Order: sequence, then structure tokens, then C-alpha cells
Amino acid sequence: MALAGRVDRCVERSGSHLCVGLDPVGFATAVEAERHVVTVLEASLEHVCAVKPNVAFFEQHGSSGLAVLERLRGRVPGDRLYILDAKRGDIGSTAEAYARALFDVLGADAVTVNPLLGGEAVAPFLARPERGAFILARTSNPGAQEIFETALADGRHLTERIVELGLQWDPSGAVGFVVGATDPGAVASVRSQAPEAPLLLPGVGAQGGPLEAAVRAAAGGPTRRFLVNVSRGIAAAPEGPKRAAARLRAQIDEALAAASPA
Amino acid sequence: MALAGRVDRCVERSGSHLCVGLDPVGFATAVEAERHVVTVLEASLEHVCAVKPNVAFFEQHGSSGLAVLERLRGRVPGDRLYILDAKRGDIGSTAEAYARALFDVLGADAVTVNPLLGGEAVAPFLARPERGAFILARTSNPGAQEIFETALADGRHLTERIVELGLQWDPSGAVGFVVGATDPGAVASVRSQAPEAPLLLPGVGAQGGPLEAAVRAAAGGPTRRFLVNVSRGIAAAPEGPKRAAARLRAQIDEALAAASPA
Repeated sequence: MALAGRVDRCVERSGSHLCVGLDPVGFATAVEAERHVVTVLEASLEHVCAVKPNVAFFEQHGSSGLAVLERLRGRVPGDRLYILDAKRGDIGSTAEAYARALFDVLGADAVTVNPLLGGEAVAPFLARPERGAFILARTSNPGAQEIFETALADGRHLTERIVELGLQWDPSGAVGFVVGATDPGAVASVRSQAPEAPLLLPGVGAQGGPLEAAVRAAAGGPTRRFLVNVSRGIAAAPEGPKRAAARLRAQIDEALAAASPA
Repeated sequence: MALAGRVDRCVERSGSHLCVGLDPVGFATAVEAERHVVTVLEASLEHVCAVKPNVAFFEQHGSSGLAVLERLRGRVPGDRLYILDAKRGDIGSTAEAYARALFDVLGADAVTVNPLLGGEAVAPFLARPERGAFILARTSNPGAQEIFETALADGRHLTERIVELGLQWDPSGAVGFVVGATDPGAVASVRSQAPEAPLLLPGVGAQGGPLEAAVRAAAGGPTRRFLVNVSRGIAAAPEGPKRAAARLRAQIDEALAAASPA
């Protein structure tokens, strides 16, 4: 089953479009970071369809941080999608080495990938059965427009070119896209260009993305293939991660119901 | 002293523009990878001004591979530039975490950085005194043109836009650029746009980049601020890494002498 089908299955089984981001920010040691992410994971797990550790926050603790990530995989049940947010982008044998690190050593089902170096940089992440890549199409940072919205000679923006190429590179439903929920217009645009691709939407919560508009945009196609990632909005919620995850899951469902009344 | 000055000093002290790439490809264990890179490093060190491990080939061995990289720093003398080829590109606190990992934990003097996410993704790599970043402007892979050569509305290519932004993002000589030696025309173009920026030129050797033309292009400015990276062309040379490094260093010097007869 390709990435697209796996997203469908995870959403269906969990009854949730919520992805919990594990971003252990501000811990002095790998041990403290591990304790934090395990707490957030266990508290939120029943309300999420996917789990997305951000590799940077483990690597900042060096080899002991990477060892935390090696142990973390075993705590995530197989019916949740395990996404490693690494945003790697390199060529040839280097990209293959990153694919080995993320899929084979750390156990990712899917990874985030930077497409700047072209299809060769993405191909190794699409080569494993049942695994796949979310290609960065438009990130959630305020300055994302600097390059993603570069106006091209053919009248489009770079984001549109990336999505077009991403679909061309895709052998068989292994490609999804990252689009910041902070810009629902960009979500709608990517969705209309790639009606069946899984979308990963970061930027809700701490980054202030408008949840309802983003969900409406992502659901504007024949499928419900989207995941809303929330990291700090769960981990640092005053109400605690369990209640925050339950609330966010319900908010996504409500936005979805409002978007497409049955 | 900013990155630009450090490159000058390393080149001057070592009398070499050669950078040895440490890419341990094809080893089953981290122990074997470590033995290999230490051998290549020690054999080539007297002929190089810089050392560039490719992080992917260590991460593919998980935490024990990252531990090799932690130990490797101590083997590189302080008068050589230590460049970690990681091609990271992420935002805000994530980019800061990668900067901590690469500079503070692994001891890089400079890193390679992917600019797709904009200036926010690059800034944390420019914020440490004496450290800096080589921004990907045009990579050495055959498919690099797919996105780097995208034609823009203003008549330029994306590479030119990236170099323009990179110079704007630069607080004080902390920015260099990666340009594949495989395309001397691209090297010449980046050099004319950024006459004083350090250039890191990969793709010579196994990737077949034309050494002489690339050196001529990189030297076509007021400075001699460029490094020619060779990885497999040193590590896997039939004549052994020591002789290969000596030969490549001499070839660069000859190309330089031919480019600008004194």
C-alpha cells in the first residue's frame, strides 16, 4: 500500500486527522528531551493518526539525542503514521544514505523532503514500498514567500512548479506535500493541483495558522487525505496535551463537517 | 574573523585550495566507516586547506555513526576549515537546533545550507562569530537544472535570485556559496554576482567536473576565495589518497597560474 493509501487507513482507523509533532525544545539533556516527548506522545496518542518527531531537536543533543529517536519508534503503534520531519535534500548516494538513516535505522513511514536539488534528490525517498515523502511545497514561516513565491517566466509561482514536478516524480502514490496551514490560499492551490496527494499541514497552534480555513482548503478534493500537525499547541497547552489533542481533533472534525455537509 | 577571512587564512597557511570530502560510502558498520575516514584524512591532510565530512554517511549508521562524527573533530587541526556538509534547511527554532548540532556539538566552522525556506532558515547559521554557511546556489548533480535553472519572470534563473538573496542575508562576510564544478558557466556567473564570497566547488573527480575551467571561473574576481572539494577522487584513487591529494592540489595551482599569469 502506497503512502496515499496508508494515510487513508490511518485516518480511518484513528478517526482523526491530527498529527502530533514531537519538538523537544529547550531541554538541556537528551534524557529530559526523551522524558518530555514520551509524556506528550502517550497523552495524545489516542487522538492522533500520525506522529511527527522533528529530527533537529534530537540531533542538537548529538549521538545521545539520536539514540532517543532510535528508541522512540518502538513506542508508536504500527497503525499510526510515523513521519520523520528532517527536510533532507541531497543527491545520489548521499540522498540514499539519508533514506537509510530515516527509514531503515529510525523506522520512518514517511519523511519530509526538500526538493531544491531536483528529482534525483527525492527519488531515494520514494523507492521503498509502503514508504513515501512529503515534499516541501510551501512552508509555514513568515518568510516562506521569499523563494516559494518567486514569480516564474510562465506566470506561476515556484510552489506550483514544485508541485508539478513532485507529481511527475511520483512513481505510485508515494508523494505528498507539506503546505503551511498559515496560508489557506496556498493549501487550496496545492490541493487543486494535486487533488489526490496527501497533504501535511504544519503551522497550526503556536504559529497561528487558521485551522478551519486550512482544513476547508485541504478537504476541497475527492479525498480526505490530509494531516494537521500541531506541536507546541499540544505539548505546551495550558490544559495539558491530552485535552489539547482531543480539542484539536474535534475542531478539525467540525471544520471538515462544515466544509462538506453530507 | 568572518568566514571569508577564515577561508583566506586557511588557503594561505596550507598553500592549497583543496578540500577533502569525507564520504564513507558502503561500509557496513560505523567502526569501519571511522577507520576509513581517519585513513583518508591523515593521508590527505598535508595537502588540503579544508575538510568536509558529509553528515549523511555518518547518520546512516544511527547514533553510533553520529558518535564517529563527534570524535572526528578532534583529528582536524584548527588551521584547517572544518565544513559539515549537511544541507539543512528549516525554520525558526528548528534551524537554531540544527545550528547547535552542527556548530556546537559537532564543531563545524562552516556548514552547507539549503535556502529554499528563505532567509529565516539561513540566519541561525550566520549568527555565530567566525562561523558561516555555504548556501546551495547550484549543485553538481545532472538534474540540478530542474529547479535551480527555473526561468524567472525577471529573466533570470533561480540560482541568480538565490545568490542575490544570500548576499542580502549576509551580516558580515559569513555567507559563501556552493556551486557545482560540473558547470563552470554557473561558477563564473555566481563569481561575477558575488565577487568576494567564498565558493565551495564540489563535483570534481568521480562526478567528472572539469577542474581547470571551474578554477578559472572561481578565480575570476578580486579574491582567491574558493575551495575545490574532492571526495571519492581522493578516497578511492588507485594511486592512494596521499598522492591523489598532492596531484589535485598541484592541478588546482596550475589552473590558477594559467588563469592569472602574474
